[in-house]
Amino acid sequence: MARRLAELNTPCLVLDRRRMQSNIKRMAQRAASLGVALRPHLKTCKSLEIGAYLAPGKKRVTVSTLREAEYFADGGFRDILYAVSIAPARLPAVARLNAAGARVQVLLDNPEAVRQLALSAADLGCGFEAWIEVDVDGHRAGLEPEDPQLVELGRGLQSASGIELRGVMTHAGGSYNCRNMPELEAHAEQERQRCVAAAGRLRAAGIRCPGVSVGSTPTALAAARLDGVTELRAGVYVFFDLFQAGLGVCRVEDIALSVLTTVISHKKSHRRLIIDAGGLALSKDRSTAGQALDCGYGLVARAADGRVVSGLSVSKVNQEHGMIELAHVSDFDAYPVGSQLRILPNHACMTAAAYEGYSVLDSDDRVVERWSRCSGW
Amino acid sequence: MARRLAELNTPCLVLDRRRMQSNIKRMAQRAASLGVALRPHLKTCKSLEIGAYLAPGKKRVTVSTLREAEYFADGGFRDILYAVSIAPARLPAVARLNAAGARVQVLLDNPEAVRQLALSAADLGCGFEAWIEVDVDGHRAGLEPEDPQLVELGRGLQSASGIELRGVMTHAGGSYNCRNMPELEAHAEQERQRCVAAAGRLRAAGIRCPGVSVGSTPTALAAARLDGVTELRAGVYVFFDLFQAGLGVCRVEDIALSVLTTVISHKKSHRRLIIDAGGLALSKDRSTAGQALDCGYGLVARAADGRVVSGLSVSKVNQEHGMIELAHVSDFDAYPVGSQLRILPNHACMTAAAYEGYSVLDSDDRVVERWSRCSGW
Repeated sequence: MARRLAELNTPCLVLDRRRMQSNIKRMAQRAASLGVALRPHLKTCKSLEIGAYLAPGKKRVTVSTLREAEYFADGGFRDILYAVSIAPARLPAVARLNAAGARVQVLLDNPEAVRQLALSAADLGCGFEAWIEVDVDGHRAGLEPEDPQLVELGRGLQSASGIELRGVMTHAGGSYNCRNMPELEAHAEQERQRCVAAAGRLRAAGIRCPGVSVGSTPTALAAARLDGVTELRAGVYVFFDLFQAGLGVCRVEDIALSVLTTVISHKKSHRRLIIDAGGLALSKDRSTAGQALDCGYGLVARAADGRVVSGLSVSKVNQEHGMIELAHVSDFDAYPVGSQLRILPNHACMTAAAYEGYSVLDSDDRVVERWSRCSGW
Repeated sequence: MARRLAELNTPCLVLDRRRMQSNIKRMAQRAASLGVALRPHLKTCKSLEIGAYLAPGKKRVTVSTLREAEYFADGGFRDILYAVSIAPARLPAVARLNAAGARVQVLLDNPEAVRQLALSAADLGCGFEAWIEVDVDGHRAGLEPEDPQLVELGRGLQSASGIELRGVMTHAGGSYNCRNMPELEAHAEQERQRCVAAAGRLRAAGIRCPGVSVGSTPTALAAARLDGVTELRAGVYVFFDLFQAGLGVCRVEDIALSVLTTVISHKKSHRRLIIDAGGLALSKDRSTAGQALDCGYGLVARAADGRVVSGLSVSKVNQEHGMIELAHVSDFDAYPVGSQLRILPNHACMTAAAYEGYSVLDSDDRVVERWSRCSGW
């Protein structure tokens, strides 16, 4: 039987299923219209139930930790790209997952990782599928398409026994510094061109490179074309968040995830409402601080229907306290001690990580399901 | 049998037991020399094993969530101050813990909470012990000593059937804005004076107020005297962290907690070392950003012995990537892909919260025990 929000222990994660489904549909249509496969990233949701919405066939997904790979493989997911540079010590665990049929693919961008991968394949008597990480914007890891090491790595992988190069992949994290859709579209085109160029260099050197995998939620939604790309990866679009809204790739009304919280005190001398969602419940992520609209530690929405309350945000947090400044003392009447609010997150991936699961709301904001999450490493 | 660090899956929390014991001893001696009882705050460690070091008799402790109260009560702890304004909906759970003998005391600072507490005591047919929160520096919650509501709340609690007022308590969180020991000592004296004054006002109105509880790690370590105070609360001193070192209340060498991480890539074009501890593993807490020494997302230490590597910090994080800028390309040789480092945290409470337990090191940096943690709400 459906529970009411008021029955939930706070702080907790609430998920608007209708909004989530609409976000998932939008990205699926986008990939289809661009003519590429979608490989959803499960690092945001870390949930079997949500993963099954994102990848209905439980195939072709992305993860960011070994723990996620194990959790989703145990849940029946297959063709899993583990999209963080592989630490050699984790190869035996990857091999175990693959022996059970999971097809976990590793990522690398340096000769030591290639050497260790070949050694492990020989030692363990197994094969590995690998992708080479390409850097398209200096944001994080990967080899630039022009780097001579790219072809060396490709040759090393191709010549190693038991190793199959699946392709090149990139994450255009630099898109998070864009300020509007034209900038995002240009960044998406840079991502596409540079990743396709990397594949071209490998192929020109006689190295088989079937896949070209690009993605980040903003570039996926801004790209005008993806010629030469085989698949698109994105993750945070499943929930969206205030940072994505600030970038302009969703509306605040699309944000499917929020933290349900309880008002625990009125500090009238400071016109300060105190809630039980602090730094641990919301995360210390302040990614909107650099955007046109700084949302503090989150925007405030009504608990009953998730509608944003204009002008209210969480301005300060301690470990278990969140503070909301009110404009007028008379505003306290609307938020009695013991009443609930919802807080929309700056960065859904960081906020969700503090919780063990999701309370799922139907279209009438009734709590109809409880969905799981994995955490840790 | 002891394990080696190299056998641990990363990222993980490692705890130097000797440093922890030294930190615990220092605070215990401090409370004794000031002539007050110590009520350690368990919100930093959230661990039964560490709690038993902090409070050897498993009595007189502080927690910040109902989950912690339940976890420590189940572990045999008694006389537990739940030091966050009580949400009325949690009173039945508190009553259940008390029926089992835990003596969980609640905190409040507003008339609605007093009303609900009295109602719950009547409804549930039980008693409650309560503390009134006092605001000594405008930092967070609580009533200022001069606020007329203070005496009203005291009267309300004293006249309610089944409610016992245990005393007044404050947390001088404003001490986190101090820049040196003289400022901290002055802040500690302000904390003492104002909390003692609140107790005095209640007593002058004929209200029984036995306890005067003050504390924060910095003021506890800086206070010159605690006349009129009955107990001292502090939590983060068990591990210390870079923020506390920046305040001057500990040395970097006293920090007992770190995140063990693996080097996963060398991005030589940017002189960037990439590690597998990112925003989730280190937290996005940037509390040292406002201090004289900004430590980024953490200082880098050698895995083998925990000694800080001069000049190295985690300058940027993504969800699962941490980035460390090296001064010279030749420095990469010291940190091969697959090697380990330790990262000292900005804020131990936030960083520890991402993990399920502690790998405990003996004095030779061997992993000798695994200690538990609770999380969630």
